[in-house]
Amino acid sequence: MLHDSQVEAWLREDLGHHDVTNEVPGETTGRLVAKESGVAAGLDAAARVFDYLDVDVTERIDEGAGIDAGDTVLRAEGPAKAVLRGERVAVNVAGHASGVATRTRRAVDAAREVDDDVRIAATRKTTPGLRELEKRAVVAGGGDTHRLDLSHMVMVKDNHVAEMGLESAVQHFRDRVSFATKVEVEVESPEDAPRAAEAGADVVLLDNMSPERTTQAVDLLPDDTLAEASGGITVDAVPAYASTGVDVVSMGSLTHSAASLDYSFRTGE
Amino acid sequence: MLHDSQVEAWLREDLGHHDVTNEVPGETTGRLVAKESGVAAGLDAAARVFDYLDVDVTERIDEGAGIDAGDTVLRAEGPAKAVLRGERVAVNVAGHASGVATRTRRAVDAAREVDDDVRIAATRKTTPGLRELEKRAVVAGGGDTHRLDLSHMVMVKDNHVAEMGLESAVQHFRDRVSFATKVEVEVESPEDAPRAAEAGADVVLLDNMSPERTTQAVDLLPDDTLAEASGGITVDAVPAYASTGVDVVSMGSLTHSAASLDYSFRTGE
Amino acid sequence: MLHDSQVEAWLREDLGHHDVTNEVPGETTGRLVAKESGVAAGLDAAARVFDYLDVDVTERIDEGAGIDAGDTVLRAEGPAKAVLRGERVAVNVAGHASGVATRTRRAVDAAREVDDDVRIAATRKTTPGLRELEKRAVVAGGGDTHRLDLSHMVMVKDNHVAEMGLESAVQHFRDRVSFATKVEVEVESPEDAPRAAEAGADVVLLDNMSPERTTQAVDLLPDDTLAEASGGITVDAVPAYASTGVDVVSMGSLTHSAASLDYSFRTGE
Amino acid sequence: MLHDSQVEAWLREDLGHHDVTNEVPGETTGRLVAKESGVAAGLDAAARVFDYLDVDVTERIDEGAGIDAGDTVLRAEGPAKAVLRGERVAVNVAGHASGVATRTRRAVDAAREVDDDVRIAATRKTTPGLRELEKRAVVAGGGDTHRLDLSHMVMVKDNHVAEMGLESAVQHFRDRVSFATKVEVEVESPEDAPRAAEAGADVVLLDNMSPERTTQAVDLLPDDTLAEASGGITVDAVPAYASTGVDVVSMGSLTHSAASLDYSFRTGE
Amino acid sequence: MLHDSQVEAWLREDLGHHDVTNEVPGETTGRLVAKESGVAAGLDAAARVFDYLDVDVTERIDEGAGIDAGDTVLRAEGPAKAVLRGERVAVNVAGHASGVATRTRRAVDAAREVDDDVRIAATRKTTPGLRELEKRAVVAGGGDTHRLDLSHMVMVKDNHVAEMGLESAVQHFRDRVSFATKVEVEVESPEDAPRAAEAGADVVLLDNMSPERTTQAVDLLPDDTLAEASGGITVDAVPAYASTGVDVVSMGSLTHSAASLDYSFRTGE
Amino acid sequence: MLHDSQVEAWLREDLGHHDVTNEVPGETTGRLVAKESGVAAGLDAAARVFDYLDVDVTERIDEGAGIDAGDTVLRAEGPAKAVLRGERVAVNVAGHASGVATRTRRAVDAAREVDDDVRIAATRKTTPGLRELEKRAVVAGGGDTHRLDLSHMVMVKDNHVAEMGLESAVQHFRDRVSFATKVEVEVESPEDAPRAAEAGADVVLLDNMSPERTTQAVDLLPDDTLAEASGGITVDAVPAYASTGVDVVSMGSLTHSAASLDYSFRTGE
Repeated sequence: MLHDSQVEAWLREDLGHHDVTNEVPGETTGRLVAKESGVAAGLDAAARVFDYLDVDVTERIDEGAGIDAGDTVLRAEGPAKAVLRGERVAVNVAGHASGVATRTRRAVDAAREVDDDVRIAATRKTTPGLRELEKRAVVAGGGDTHRLDLSHMVMVKDNHVAEMGLESAVQHFRDRVSFATKVEVEVESPEDAPRAAEAGADVVLLDNMSPERTTQAVDLLPDDTLAEASGGITVDAVPAYASTGVDVVSMGSLTHSAASLDYSFRTGE
Repeated sequence: MLHDSQVEAWLREDLGHHDVTNEVPGETTGRLVAKESGVAAGLDAAARVFDYLDVDVTERIDEGAGIDAGDTVLRAEGPAKAVLRGERVAVNVAGHASGVATRTRRAVDAAREVDDDVRIAATRKTTPGLRELEKRAVVAGGGDTHRLDLSHMVMVKDNHVAEMGLESAVQHFRDRVSFATKVEVEVESPEDAPRAAEAGADVVLLDNMSPERTTQAVDLLPDDTLAEASGGITVDAVPAYASTGVDVVSMGSLTHSAASLDYSFRTGE
Repeated sequence: MLHDSQVEAWLREDLGHHDVTNEVPGETTGRLVAKESGVAAGLDAAARVFDYLDVDVTERIDEGAGIDAGDTVLRAEGPAKAVLRGERVAVNVAGHASGVATRTRRAVDAAREVDDDVRIAATRKTTPGLRELEKRAVVAGGGDTHRLDLSHMVMVKDNHVAEMGLESAVQHFRDRVSFATKVEVEVESPEDAPRAAEAGADVVLLDNMSPERTTQAVDLLPDDTLAEASGGITVDAVPAYASTGVDVVSMGSLTHSAASLDYSFRTGE
Repeated sequence: MLHDSQVEAWLREDLGHHDVTNEVPGETTGRLVAKESGVAAGLDAAARVFDYLDVDVTERIDEGAGIDAGDTVLRAEGPAKAVLRGERVAVNVAGHASGVATRTRRAVDAAREVDDDVRIAATRKTTPGLRELEKRAVVAGGGDTHRLDLSHMVMVKDNHVAEMGLESAVQHFRDRVSFATKVEVEVESPEDAPRAAEAGADVVLLDNMSPERTTQAVDLLPDDTLAEASGGITVDAVPAYASTGVDVVSMGSLTHSAASLDYSFRTGE
Repeated sequence: MLHDSQVEAWLREDLGHHDVTNEVPGETTGRLVAKESGVAAGLDAAARVFDYLDVDVTERIDEGAGIDAGDTVLRAEGPAKAVLRGERVAVNVAGHASGVATRTRRAVDAAREVDDDVRIAATRKTTPGLRELEKRAVVAGGGDTHRLDLSHMVMVKDNHVAEMGLESAVQHFRDRVSFATKVEVEVESPEDAPRAAEAGADVVLLDNMSPERTTQAVDLLPDDTLAEASGGITVDAVPAYASTGVDVVSMGSLTHSAASLDYSFRTGE
Repeated sequence: MLHDSQVEAWLREDLGHHDVTNEVPGETTGRLVAKESGVAAGLDAAARVFDYLDVDVTERIDEGAGIDAGDTVLRAEGPAKAVLRGERVAVNVAGHASGVATRTRRAVDAAREVDDDVRIAATRKTTPGLRELEKRAVVAGGGDTHRLDLSHMVMVKDNHVAEMGLESAVQHFRDRVSFATKVEVEVESPEDAPRAAEAGADVVLLDNMSPERTTQAVDLLPDDTLAEASGGITVDAVPAYASTGVDVVSMGSLTHSAASLDYSFRTGE
């Protein structure tokens, strides 16, 4: 959930010490209106911003809902001064999160053209300070959060393997993490995929492989080991990877390079 | 400057409670390496992340420097555990800020094709929590920060004008802000531009006008009033607006829709 | 606006770990009553303190209102325990801010005796942690906030001039700040005033000059450049400086040396 | 001790998002120089500000030391950019605390003219956010902190007495606080003083009494009960109260109405 | 009082970034139910947790009340999602505090078998971050908080005595603390007890003495000096120490080694 | 990792506003010495406390090491004032964490008597604010962290099953969480265990069953599904449960009811 201290920090950085243009008497209504189509996300965060300012949010659409240009996605009512203070932060946070959700939906749709089950996942390449917001936006867009933080799932990386050998590295971390934690192993060649599975990987990350080599790797893996394709995969390339039989296609660009969705804020209407 | 509490929040959200894969003995070196060309920014922030972790940053290039794929932009040395803990956050923050700087540089270059002086400015449409980082990244890219926060400059908007009339609205805010604060007035038609200047605007924002109408408005303005073009201006449209005679072209997309610049982090080399 | 974390810190430092004398059952009413005449300020902050404690503020007078001894300026109703917890902090913050407002009003009144327009401005010499509170109190007293923070307006100081020369220094900062930011130049002699204006200063600070030299400097300045007198100006000296033709008289003492306005807090009445 | 989060808040409010005038290359030295005589305090706080900025404080005089105009009280060395960032906050905090210490010293000196032992004490009427700083400044000036917070000592006030009766009120709180906590009772008449002592008060506060009535009350008190005079006592009135035989004279004005001590900050010398 | 930032930190550490099992629609009721008998404490803290989540606490028993297995001690009503989010933290904080209160009550009861007045006190050996919660739980159990923090009462320890001598050490600190602060002196032998009292100790701590030696020391002390027995005293040893005539028996184990009281949280009933 | 803001909060609550007994000149050495045998934990946290105070930790033993009465586990050197300020917090945090580690080790040893592999795991029943510290202490004692927070692993509980049916409930959450997240299902009878496995549980929690019924349930589970025994299991009962064939025995008491390990802090030696 979005905490008060974060809302406070967002408002603080936008208002400064003396925001005279917000000194408007009376009550008003403000509406967050989409200027383009996409997928709604971050409206709960926008609502928390207004809540911090003691402004009532009387209406908002669900996270993950499809929206068209012109749609009102959130309505806020309260003292004009407070509504105006929340405006810019609300627009910014909703625009950012909805942009992530929209980009995710596009990737999911591309995957669905060729496969009903493959998951489109984000990575830890998120915007500093917005990990939770962006992960929830990915979910709103139909994607998979992937690791929420470093402690969520172990990732055995190439440098671990280089140092200890694949089997020992997997064993090393198995011994050190909870039974509650999955272990994923990053491999650079299709041949290493079954070795990783054999060593005890719950998930095998097929790193920077072409769709062809990805398919090869998947074919070598046992059924109960999940396979993830990762590494610079664009939306255009999603169908090719989604056709390889992997369980997961992960894309850093869902969070680090999504354009904001365009919203405007209309008051007094 | 980037404060400790923000670095702490960034690390906290990425590490979680028990990050076993960072439990590596000994010392190591890590390098932040560009995987594509662009403009460096956010390296001071990345350095602060390592500083928080008591890792030495022994080398880093200047904010605003042009970089090519393969360039090392920052080198960090310290306990392997600490270097690894900082890795993801450092990459994320540098990638985000460098993406903003790179997009800004592109817009500035587009403007320079037609005009030597026009400023490319950001807006308040920044990512929540990253106002300062993004504004500094815009500067690194050769752009202008525009308003840092609501208290920095007064913006008289259409709803103020609708309510009080243009002249009264300007006067109203003039009376309420410091002599240290500029007043900008948003106008919707070329004809209103000189009225705003006459009323005492330091800057006139020509909102959502075509290049032609923007030129008209500029021609009507006295020399000592600054003119800003704003409203959905794309990089492709920059030359057209830069040719109108405006002093400033502002673009929300510099901050809210810049793709991250791609960096990798290489340890032990 | 006053944020929750600041209210929390204020209450925390006053209450300690076990405040037994507040453990009073039932509901009560508390009134903040002036014990001397002055100008009200900081009542919004006092109200935020009670709001944090879930106490209703049912009545309060406007910031900037003149008050007499015996006037009730704020009324709070709620659980006795919570009302009592807020009492001391509310009195302290209102007393401090009202003291600043009252001192400001006195300086403004002194200026009005000789000039209708000259602004009485504060400086950045504020009490650490209370910048915004004090700046708003200055406004409540009829004064001008002056720079809210270092990023609000550029001040070219004597050491910049010593190092780069006056004209280059102004140009140096003009190139580095936004078009949204004014540039003020500090000069030590009347002769430098027009040079600063010529170099592009929006405001010229006439530092530590006598009223006579200040008049000289003002006479040398073009009409559209603002002039500020500053440097150890006491309330008694305000009329002399206000008569020089400057636009602004600034005084650090408004914030750093204002005596608190005396309030008492009466419960159960 | 002054904590990092407080230093961070002080710097944050002064710097804003883009402080271009601090962007000075190289190293420099800065000196905090007194412009008037007084008592040093808050230099440890100023040093913490520089410490936060990784600036070395190479020299500073002791808290409580007497200073003359022209004295250097603190010297800082480091990157010019960091030294400049700390300047204003360091001056403000040292000026504020030294003002409190100086005012305290003046009151202590006034008391010493007539009595060698009477303590000059502060109250809880401190500036919000600066409780510890101001209490330590009072100590630096030779004064007594009095209650640090509400939990430090119990104060039985007139409304408690009105509700429960004097003896019951004292007993009520005695039963509810630790043996580690003293109990002070506020009385409005000399006659109530011995009743309070009898009821178990460690200290009796003689509230708003004239020096004559204060003397009367003291004479009625047993030797092992401390007597405190309080209520609008000015520095001029200190000798009269100090002659009454009370153990403590407390004055809210030490903290809430002390004028700042004037310091300047000189760099590059 | 428990502050928002602490509640926020507690919830943050338990929820993580994406707590899907709380995503339950509708409203619900939750009850905190004791699974064993003991003494209630920490229910105000649990209530604050729900309050932060905008869940109504419609019923709760008083701090310090005796409870039996099966008793409902707190009832919360609100959105199911919010009730569930608060569940674990509420149970943990109430369990911890009630465990402290229950252990305290047991020690107090043991003391009451032999003495009506002796106080059972906690120490500064509290769990980091929970000083106030635990001290209040001690009070709920019928105990005495003892020192709330280092600034509350001076403790002259053996190393101070070793360095300065007993009398000088007491005088040294008397000179440096407020009249509002008691001074306790730690002694290692019965003979030193009256010396400490003579030197001005308000309280004498009889450190690690047997009940016999404790009795000896008490007998040597004047009536108006409080005596405290301390040092590894178990609940079983309480009656022996309570019979010595000391005023206070203090036990670190009340806070640092109390087992949690077992509560369950039942929803939808 | 332990963050600065938490260390600051711990010190703040212990020191108060004016800790005179720490005002000791010169440098000193402090040693944390065990007064009983056990398992070391929390020494990294204690070290962070000293680090915050700019005190050097020159020596400390590894987390998880066995210690005997008299062992020095950490040595700190620095200004006496700073060493003394850290003392109590360092002792408290190390004592608390080492108590958890020691209790865990005892449970692990009890399990090892009958089984080489069964894991002894903690739960989410941790002390508010100390989740990470306690989980790491459990690891130091040879235990398993279990869920770090609610987002780490899904737990399908009886009320979910009651509402949706076992199979649907598992599917419901499978659809909503990442592939990176394990799903555990709580069952109340041995017969439900294989149903849960069949439905897709990665782990089955056998709630409040006797060792006999636990054995039954384990026998019904497929090999690749983990089995956890939970619910009021004491250290004495560990061998009985460890003999049932479960993979994990979890115990809330490891964290919520561990007695502190007794340390003293000796300075100047």
